[in-house]
Amino acid sequence: MTRLLLGPGPSMVSPRALASMSQPLLGYLDPQLFEILKKVQQGLRQLFQTQNEVTLALPGTGMSGMECALGNLIEPGDPVLIGAIGFFGERMVEIARRYGADVHVARAEWGKPLQPEQIQAALDQKDRWKLVACVHAETSTGVVQPISEIAHLAKSCGALFVMDAVTSLGGLPVKVDEWGVDVCYSATQKCVGAPPGLAPITLSESAWQAIANRSHPNRSWYLDIRLLWDYWNEKRIYHHTTPVSLFYALQEALKMIEEEGIEQRFERHRQVASKFYQGASALGLSFCVEPEHRAPTLTSLHIPEGVEDAPFRSRLLNEFGIEIGGGLGDWKGKVWRIGLMGHSCQTDHVKKLLQAMETILHGNH
Amino acid sequence: MTRLLLGPGPSMVSPRALASMSQPLLGYLDPQLFEILKKVQQGLRQLFQTQNEVTLALPGTGMSGMECALGNLIEPGDPVLIGAIGFFGERMVEIARRYGADVHVARAEWGKPLQPEQIQAALDQKDRWKLVACVHAETSTGVVQPISEIAHLAKSCGALFVMDAVTSLGGLPVKVDEWGVDVCYSATQKCVGAPPGLAPITLSESAWQAIANRSHPNRSWYLDIRLLWDYWNEKRIYHHTTPVSLFYALQEALKMIEEEGIEQRFERHRQVASKFYQGASALGLSFCVEPEHRAPTLTSLHIPEGVEDAPFRSRLLNEFGIEIGGGLGDWKGKVWRIGLMGHSCQTDHVKKLLQAMETILHGNH
Repeated sequence: MTRLLLGPGPSMVSPRALASMSQPLLGYLDPQLFEILKKVQQGLRQLFQTQNEVTLALPGTGMSGMECALGNLIEPGDPVLIGAIGFFGERMVEIARRYGADVHVARAEWGKPLQPEQIQAALDQKDRWKLVACVHAETSTGVVQPISEIAHLAKSCGALFVMDAVTSLGGLPVKVDEWGVDVCYSATQKCVGAPPGLAPITLSESAWQAIANRSHPNRSWYLDIRLLWDYWNEKRIYHHTTPVSLFYALQEALKMIEEEGIEQRFERHRQVASKFYQGASALGLSFCVEPEHRAPTLTSLHIPEGVEDAPFRSRLLNEFGIEIGGGLGDWKGKVWRIGLMGHSCQTDHVKKLLQAMETILHGNH
Repeated sequence: MTRLLLGPGPSMVSPRALASMSQPLLGYLDPQLFEILKKVQQGLRQLFQTQNEVTLALPGTGMSGMECALGNLIEPGDPVLIGAIGFFGERMVEIARRYGADVHVARAEWGKPLQPEQIQAALDQKDRWKLVACVHAETSTGVVQPISEIAHLAKSCGALFVMDAVTSLGGLPVKVDEWGVDVCYSATQKCVGAPPGLAPITLSESAWQAIANRSHPNRSWYLDIRLLWDYWNEKRIYHHTTPVSLFYALQEALKMIEEEGIEQRFERHRQVASKFYQGASALGLSFCVEPEHRAPTLTSLHIPEGVEDAPFRSRLLNEFGIEIGGGLGDWKGKVWRIGLMGHSCQTDHVKKLLQAMETILHGNH
């Protein structure tokens, strides 16, 4: 049975993008592959809404994007402020610590965004900041963090601004240049509509300069953005063997985004989410996030009293072939996470999910 | 035109393994995916010839395997001996340095293996060694390094032994347990017969203990083997989103290896290489490596005097659809590298390559 993937990711992939991976491989120095990589860069620049030259996809999952973004900027001792609104913000904290940063954290309660005042108050405690980082759409809660004001505060004190767009890119507007994001990374398997395994990333000129001015090389060799870029740019210097099959699928997914139109795509995500909100409310389910802070791409619901998490999700998977996500961290066992992203984001899928949930919750066949 | 990939990798992938990637995705916590991962582990243990429990495939290319192997073992200041016989040995040196090791290098001239006496002499210069590492089949030269004696010397002085099996695993015997290899990693896109993007890796109990006893966490979070293993073991703790499409292909490729029989597979690699040696000699081409040190999987040839590297390989690619590799590092512009690995390793491919080379070199149509 084909799974209806309505969890926090991976989302489903269109038959077109899936079929593209059956094409024979190309070598990593093949001019035909370079054409594909160029198209991928163009498509990613449109999604990120950026003119950044350094725009590429890393040979790893979204988490490699997080480590690449932080690890290339951080040198030991660098003061770093993480705005954490959930599980993935805390991952940023962990990675920044491993890279030797002097890590400070501004936290919001799970289910709520950070207020710019909190960021300003944290920034006021030090004279110099290397970077400020936060997650745009928190996959653990489904909160959208308003970005432009925070990015502005970071820039005002000379810090670089890093943003995680894993659960937003391709599903809601990500305006890298307009908001002043210096490094933005994402993943392919959520709203972009491709399989997992690649991490789109884009770097501003300021971020690039900061990396060029490092005193020590990046600790990670695999995720050293300068080495990676020397393959992506006209030098084409070997660094790793390009996971070409995944790039076939990413190219196809980006083509489908262009065909759909990016604004239409955002509108689809809003409308399908809205249908789900209505249906979930009608089932008596309650939301973890206030409407004005909700990401259309991912919705957290409180697990109703008396309902057990694991058996419910097992029935959903085994009897209906539908995957939704459980809670992460403190929310484990307390919430369900429903993703309506990319190719998974369809009205028909919402109907199937609501019917299945109703059947299990209320026994209505 | 479908490429005949006869370079240092990626190799071609069978239609069966390619087709498997068109299957719809599974979530990273889906019991059906866990079945696939278990089969992949079983298949990899057979290929690695090991009983190691900690056997998995990393969500990155072969180079992520190198960084994972070294980075998880090395703590700052650890004395490390790299036996370098080519470009990839030097990469080990670079990565070990970035992870803060006290790096010592025993080098062999490119095209030759290291002698055990060189390793012993290097080992004699210090009382304690954290690890000794070397490449089994050097992709830059096509030299096979005899391993068991070196591994024994390393163990004798209490060091762990790390081996790169990127260009050997699935093409020539890799005997992790018999030789006493503590950490062995590879890639999927050469002799294993799957697309690039995953790095098989296996760790001995001793390696695992050394990692458990670290004073500081691994610098890399993405390649922290303990976090990775907590997803692969029965805990199934989320770390990254499994690149499931690549695992479909890896499972299929491993199944094909089992169907073929591993000894028959090694024999095929020897026989096809032997046919190529004969044909290349008949064309007047000369080899960079003595017969007794040659990997059947990868052959380096001196570029004949008067022949230009880039135009030759361009004609091969554009007129005949055949990819071979150029030289790396000091051998750039001086050698060609021909890979006969996995699904690319077929007598028919050798014939096509030799005919094309003859046509370009001697104008015989």
